[in-house]
Amino acid sequence: MTLNEWLAGNTVAAQLTQLNEDNLHHNDVLGFATRTQVIDILKSLRSLILPGIFERQPVNRTRLNAVMATQLCSTAMQLCDLIHGVLRHTCEDENDADCLCRAERLTIRILEGLPAIRSLLGDDIEAAFEGDPAAKSSEEIMLSYPSLEAMSIFRIAHHIYTCGVPILPRIMTEYAHRNTGIDIHPGATIGRRFFIDHGTGVVIGETCTIGNNVKLYQGVTLGAKSFPLDENGNPIKGIKRHPDIEDNVVIYAGATILGGDTRIGHDSVIGGNVWLTHSAPPYSTVFNAQPSPVIKPMEG
Amino acid sequence: MTLNEWLAGNTVAAQLTQLNEDNLHHNDVLGFATRTQVIDILKSLRSLILPGIFERQPVNRTRLNAVMATQLCSTAMQLCDLIHGVLRHTCEDENDADCLCRAERLTIRILEGLPAIRSLLGDDIEAAFEGDPAAKSSEEIMLSYPSLEAMSIFRIAHHIYTCGVPILPRIMTEYAHRNTGIDIHPGATIGRRFFIDHGTGVVIGETCTIGNNVKLYQGVTLGAKSFPLDENGNPIKGIKRHPDIEDNVVIYAGATILGGDTRIGHDSVIGGNVWLTHSAPPYSTVFNAQPSPVIKPMEG
Amino acid sequence: MTLNEWLAGNTVAAQLTQLNEDNLHHNDVLGFATRTQVIDILKSLRSLILPGIFERQPVNRTRLNAVMATQLCSTAMQLCDLIHGVLRHTCEDENDADCLCRAERLTIRILEGLPAIRSLLGDDIEAAFEGDPAAKSSEEIMLSYPSLEAMSIFRIAHHIYTCGVPILPRIMTEYAHRNTGIDIHPGATIGRRFFIDHGTGVVIGETCTIGNNVKLYQGVTLGAKSFPLDENGNPIKGIKRHPDIEDNVVIYAGATILGGDTRIGHDSVIGGNVWLTHSAPPYSTVFNAQPSPVIKPMEG
Amino acid sequence: MTLNEWLAGNTVAAQLTQLNEDNLHHNDVLGFATRTQVIDILKSLRSLILPGIFERQPVNRTRLNAVMATQLCSTAMQLCDLIHGVLRHTCEDENDADCLCRAERLTIRILEGLPAIRSLLGDDIEAAFEGDPAAKSSEEIMLSYPSLEAMSIFRIAHHIYTCGVPILPRIMTEYAHRNTGIDIHPGATIGRRFFIDHGTGVVIGETCTIGNNVKLYQGVTLGAKSFPLDENGNPIKGIKRHPDIEDNVVIYAGATILGGDTRIGHDSVIGGNVWLTHSAPPYSTVFNAQPSPVIKPMEG
Amino acid sequence: MTLNEWLAGNTVAAQLTQLNEDNLHHNDVLGFATRTQVIDILKSLRSLILPGIFERQPVNRTRLNAVMATQLCSTAMQLCDLIHGVLRHTCEDENDADCLCRAERLTIRILEGLPAIRSLLGDDIEAAFEGDPAAKSSEEIMLSYPSLEAMSIFRIAHHIYTCGVPILPRIMTEYAHRNTGIDIHPGATIGRRFFIDHGTGVVIGETCTIGNNVKLYQGVTLGAKSFPLDENGNPIKGIKRHPDIEDNVVIYAGATILGGDTRIGHDSVIGGNVWLTHSAPPYSTVFNAQPSPVIKPMEG
Amino acid sequence: MTLNEWLAGNTVAAQLTQLNEDNLHHNDVLGFATRTQVIDILKSLRSLILPGIFERQPVNRTRLNAVMATQLCSTAMQLCDLIHGVLRHTCEDENDADCLCRAERLTIRILEGLPAIRSLLGDDIEAAFEGDPAAKSSEEIMLSYPSLEAMSIFRIAHHIYTCGVPILPRIMTEYAHRNTGIDIHPGATIGRRFFIDHGTGVVIGETCTIGNNVKLYQGVTLGAKSFPLDENGNPIKGIKRHPDIEDNVVIYAGATILGGDTRIGHDSVIGGNVWLTHSAPPYSTVFNAQPSPVIKPMEG
Repeated sequence: MTLNEWLAGNTVAAQLTQLNEDNLHHNDVLGFATRTQVIDILKSLRSLILPGIFERQPVNRTRLNAVMATQLCSTAMQLCDLIHGVLRHTCEDENDADCLCRAERLTIRILEGLPAIRSLLGDDIEAAFEGDPAAKSSEEIMLSYPSLEAMSIFRIAHHIYTCGVPILPRIMTEYAHRNTGIDIHPGATIGRRFFIDHGTGVVIGETCTIGNNVKLYQGVTLGAKSFPLDENGNPIKGIKRHPDIEDNVVIYAGATILGGDTRIGHDSVIGGNVWLTHSAPPYSTVFNAQPSPVIKPMEG
Repeated sequence: MTLNEWLAGNTVAAQLTQLNEDNLHHNDVLGFATRTQVIDILKSLRSLILPGIFERQPVNRTRLNAVMATQLCSTAMQLCDLIHGVLRHTCEDENDADCLCRAERLTIRILEGLPAIRSLLGDDIEAAFEGDPAAKSSEEIMLSYPSLEAMSIFRIAHHIYTCGVPILPRIMTEYAHRNTGIDIHPGATIGRRFFIDHGTGVVIGETCTIGNNVKLYQGVTLGAKSFPLDENGNPIKGIKRHPDIEDNVVIYAGATILGGDTRIGHDSVIGGNVWLTHSAPPYSTVFNAQPSPVIKPMEG
Repeated sequence: MTLNEWLAGNTVAAQLTQLNEDNLHHNDVLGFATRTQVIDILKSLRSLILPGIFERQPVNRTRLNAVMATQLCSTAMQLCDLIHGVLRHTCEDENDADCLCRAERLTIRILEGLPAIRSLLGDDIEAAFEGDPAAKSSEEIMLSYPSLEAMSIFRIAHHIYTCGVPILPRIMTEYAHRNTGIDIHPGATIGRRFFIDHGTGVVIGETCTIGNNVKLYQGVTLGAKSFPLDENGNPIKGIKRHPDIEDNVVIYAGATILGGDTRIGHDSVIGGNVWLTHSAPPYSTVFNAQPSPVIKPMEG
Repeated sequence: MTLNEWLAGNTVAAQLTQLNEDNLHHNDVLGFATRTQVIDILKSLRSLILPGIFERQPVNRTRLNAVMATQLCSTAMQLCDLIHGVLRHTCEDENDADCLCRAERLTIRILEGLPAIRSLLGDDIEAAFEGDPAAKSSEEIMLSYPSLEAMSIFRIAHHIYTCGVPILPRIMTEYAHRNTGIDIHPGATIGRRFFIDHGTGVVIGETCTIGNNVKLYQGVTLGAKSFPLDENGNPIKGIKRHPDIEDNVVIYAGATILGGDTRIGHDSVIGGNVWLTHSAPPYSTVFNAQPSPVIKPMEG
Repeated sequence: MTLNEWLAGNTVAAQLTQLNEDNLHHNDVLGFATRTQVIDILKSLRSLILPGIFERQPVNRTRLNAVMATQLCSTAMQLCDLIHGVLRHTCEDENDADCLCRAERLTIRILEGLPAIRSLLGDDIEAAFEGDPAAKSSEEIMLSYPSLEAMSIFRIAHHIYTCGVPILPRIMTEYAHRNTGIDIHPGATIGRRFFIDHGTGVVIGETCTIGNNVKLYQGVTLGAKSFPLDENGNPIKGIKRHPDIEDNVVIYAGATILGGDTRIGHDSVIGGNVWLTHSAPPYSTVFNAQPSPVIKPMEG
Repeated sequence: MTLNEWLAGNTVAAQLTQLNEDNLHHNDVLGFATRTQVIDILKSLRSLILPGIFERQPVNRTRLNAVMATQLCSTAMQLCDLIHGVLRHTCEDENDADCLCRAERLTIRILEGLPAIRSLLGDDIEAAFEGDPAAKSSEEIMLSYPSLEAMSIFRIAHHIYTCGVPILPRIMTEYAHRNTGIDIHPGATIGRRFFIDHGTGVVIGETCTIGNNVKLYQGVTLGAKSFPLDENGNPIKGIKRHPDIEDNVVIYAGATILGGDTRIGHDSVIGGNVWLTHSAPPYSTVFNAQPSPVIKPMEG
């Protein structure tokens, strides 16, 4: 059988159609938003906050104001459309006019939060400059540091999350995750002047809270210990499962801190590779008690 | 010397041409496929399995069947061209008509496997929903979970790998690796309902086998201990080097399990950061015996 | 208030303009280069070194020389423009003609280094083939191995770094970081035949030196222990902070080696997850003294 | 006043919005189709009829069948959407489901007519080859003759016109007009083996009929004499206003034939620049009686 | 000699560089604007006047106001940049800040004229609907009539011309010329309710004036008779050379009216193919006195 | 029947495939070149001759030489590929290596002719400036005059035609025809300092020869009278059919000059709308003897 013959007679397309329709009985995921659309909106919001950094062409500074006004207008419309689509999909008991009205109010609220986010990021840049001896200038940080990229996305996504828009924030933080290896759930609460050095493998869970002036290294996990199941064996959602980190804490590479009751007191230092499932008071130093590695001459 | 003068007289282009030709004596890697082409095909196959999720525009559901038929046709042609190119490059003793014929048969076989892959992914989505308390809906999983992205690519690449097409499967899983931080070799065997939480840093080796209903956390390695060399000091290829994981196993973050003889029995739990180079029986709990980290008040 | 009304009267664009201008008082980061421009140049340089691999279409081999000449010309002009922009931004006391002149000289020097980089990468490919039993061919390595992608970018960025061009090298290595999870500072010094298996989570610091024939696994950190602060509490920049690795060393997954005084002697092996903050002599084997993990039958 | 100040305070956008809304009171022209969308559909239909000629890449002939099937599918869906939009806009008393149903039936009818159009165009190509001594091959005709381009578009548009779809056919023939200078109303009736040499300035009116084997040169007008007005002074629409041309007629450059009662009998020749407002019997030769131009030596 | 050898040694690029530099001694045409940039601006201005008609996607009417505001902002900036470039190139004695200042004032003046142009085009659409029995709706006219396309461009270009911006207006009307075959110099003065049927071959000269409610058919020329030369044999520029057409005149296909002293009085009709080089009083009918064409039976 | 059902069962794609294959028995027009490819090459050649004019971005003049060298290289390769394809298609008795060799020689010959074409165009620009009182500068002519666009394309196409490459030249001049309304066959011979004012509707036939310093207006035809048929009733190809125009001739709008024996002597003027089928001696003035048009008051 040649490929042409097979193409004329096969049922693969029909099977795939059926399978997709079967799996989506209640919801119509095909019809309200794609990942690409969400990421495009994220990029638009980010270029309102940090114009020029992530664009194709540098922004002419004398035109900055007009560029911002234009960008705000077009972003507002797209964001409103996207939120409208999401609301229509998720709030079945509302009529469409109410949905649109709510989408407009949410859009306004999200956009009004952008200046505050810009201000937070300014502090994050400062923290990066002070926290990394290799940082040569704030431009370098904006143009190349994964921490800054992850935080610029997280702070937008978290703001949208707190406004109550579903689904979009998580798609946004996963876009940061894929680009930086830093996985922060949009529900986490993070204070000012936050910096993550290198960053790959960092995980910060949904119900985590982090104070001001905290610094993390690569591979740090702020995670859940375990989670209770309901009577059907499914995890109970919405419970506090992740630790709290107070102000001025440094957590070195590969450290793992787990549990909703675990609280790291302010001005503490957590050593590399530490595995910690209970709290530490303020001004603690936590390190592994394990013996030094063994160094032997090679055999043979 | 100005740049224009240098451009007129330099030999850099000639040197680079020579170096590239020298390094490619037997093979003509420049002429059969580029990474971009392979990834384009991967995306086409994936949008047959999960239409709309990763596209630019949502798919209108009432047109789903026609969209699928169109997509199948065009994907079939491109895939066949690509496989034909790879076969012509790698099978020197075949004539071109035989190569094309084989390419067509392989293309049909690959496409016929898509419905089964869709069905496997449906189970993976379910496993993610049940395995992560932060998961709000199956749409969220499809649109944002790195585990689902990695598995949708792995399951396609593995299918192509088992059909015997060289090179393409590895390019595909590396595309997943770069996007998710999850590095699964296309040769690995993975059962139903598989879920990886967070995922960055996970490594699953070529000869690994994994049962049904297994859950991994970030940073887990299922790797090789060491590998025998041949008389020239080169590694002997094609040997069983990676562990077997049976059904219903959970492996927490940062655990490392090594070796082709290592088998983790069903219904076991492997703790975080464990370094394991030998087998564990079914229903085991494996954890580090190390003392708790030391917590001291900060000096000074 | 509808969205249209809000758009007509809001001050968000003005606030964002003001915030961006405030934060950039001395510098005009908006006006000299964007990340996209730097990455485009990086891709052009890379396709001079490894033509066809990362392109949209395969390169016809009989045209290789002419393709190279064309590519060199257009890359030279773009690179010179970019460097000119960076110099004008960073060297305030030079006049523009001097800047352009310096930019041209730097461009020539960078391009003249490409053949040597191609030669280094040829050795890296060989090292990968010999170091990974799963590697089937050198094409597979070029087309899919993150190590090769990271090294092709690092070796270009390092060359630009040693020529003294600021900012660009770091943007380039961060592009590698986001795509491979391998974070190598462009200031690091790395010898011939270098290979990183899997790679996610690897960190190699700015003042690290690595000999020939070194092999790393995923999650290895070659980092700083801590760093001295100046009288203002800011880190003192430019100090040797990262370890030296001599020839023929293998470092297994998750090992952490820290400190500017730490030197790993040639022909040593560093075991997985080892945390090492002092030197080891040549021919050492370093491993964790920790007891094996405990394996218990599951309770209940 | 700077541009930025003006942008902040002007009312031009508001005025333009108002003007556009005022002019579109009954209809919502902004919401159902753009010229670009119609032309895209036209191109899709044309590449079904003449695959490869107008594409970016040549079509691989061995894949022709699969290419056609793919193209038919995607064209069908887009065409149906466009017709649905037009119908919804123009047929106010139908409900949407009826509109969609009618759009589907019209789409099927249009697509089923394509093979007949291909056959007509085959004859047109033959007529061009026989009618132009400069024609070297049928490929040259397909790739470069404006007559063939205009006829391929006209025959599609006319078919859609006879199916009763409004607006779209005229946009299509105007696309031909802009590209070839040949202005044929989609309502005209044209027989087999039609050829226009050079073509610029040709006008063929809505109620014109043309037999088989007719040849026109550039600048020929088959137009209306004048048209009756209704009581409001507006032209009465839908009256026969343009001439009939029977089989085997040749009309030379610049000739003008006007009026709904004017009929040119078969096997006639109409000379260049003739201005004709009444009929000619079969086998006529029509030419200007005007004296030859005067040739004088130049004065001075 | 192979192509590669030739490419390595030829001097064609050098010759072409030299020839282009020689021909551009005074001016730097390469450095201020390209045709594409001018046409892009034209399209932006046009979509402010007739939103949605010529775009890729229909405009959502409820967002019209915000779309307009966005579009006005971005168009203003691009237009100002373009005018700035042209002024810098053409006004050698001004300093750059003055140029920019003038460019901003011109930009504002151009944009403030857009509502008046929209209003004129509304009348032109009405005139087309009343003047063409084949016109089915005003949408059809906007979406397909070459007259409307030419006039929308002419009215923009003429406005820019009267503001005193050089070069750009002519590039714009030539863009209309290529798309419609209607060649109107941007310096011509044209009243309200103007319509050209079919249009190919129409020429309207620089110093022509046309009243209200005038209708032209294809191939009409409103041109110059001849023009005086200066002492060097070059044409004297800036002299009135083209006719005046008063209100309510109809000019049929192919008519030619020449000369700066020629004035067609109001409410006149000019017949097809008439060649007229002197004035006609109001209420004239002008037609060719030539005998009818001769109709003979074909010989042989 | 729904559209989906129809799509599943129809035979339209099969019919269209069959029809296209039937009509292309000997030739494989689908496989050697598309119109788009030819036009892309034309644009590349043109931007070598007139850099920057037709591009997206202005060319930086200080980089002109390097831009030219880059452009020449890439154009050479594409042109050679295209000619190779055409030769392989049209010269059945050559082997492929000979074809490639011939294609390389033709490519070199074509490229070596470019400086001479640039020089001719320089004269054409001068002639336009002197011939049109509305011309403000040579930039305006290059950026907007259809005559210059048509001649830049014709002179390239004619050069390729005289090198003996089939099919491509005609596609190129038809691209000029569609953009300018000026239809010049690539076989025509045209001297220096040639200018066409307005241009729409100009036709210049394949065997026409035109001297230096000739000026044409819109609608001028230099055509064939009639052409002899062979025994099968097909036109005999390759005969001299079009007139000769000597130096310093002006031909006004709408004039028609026909026949291979017709020769217009140097320094002649041909009046508007003249229809001329025999020769005129040098220094002739040719005009229509027709009486002036009749001007009557309009009947009431």
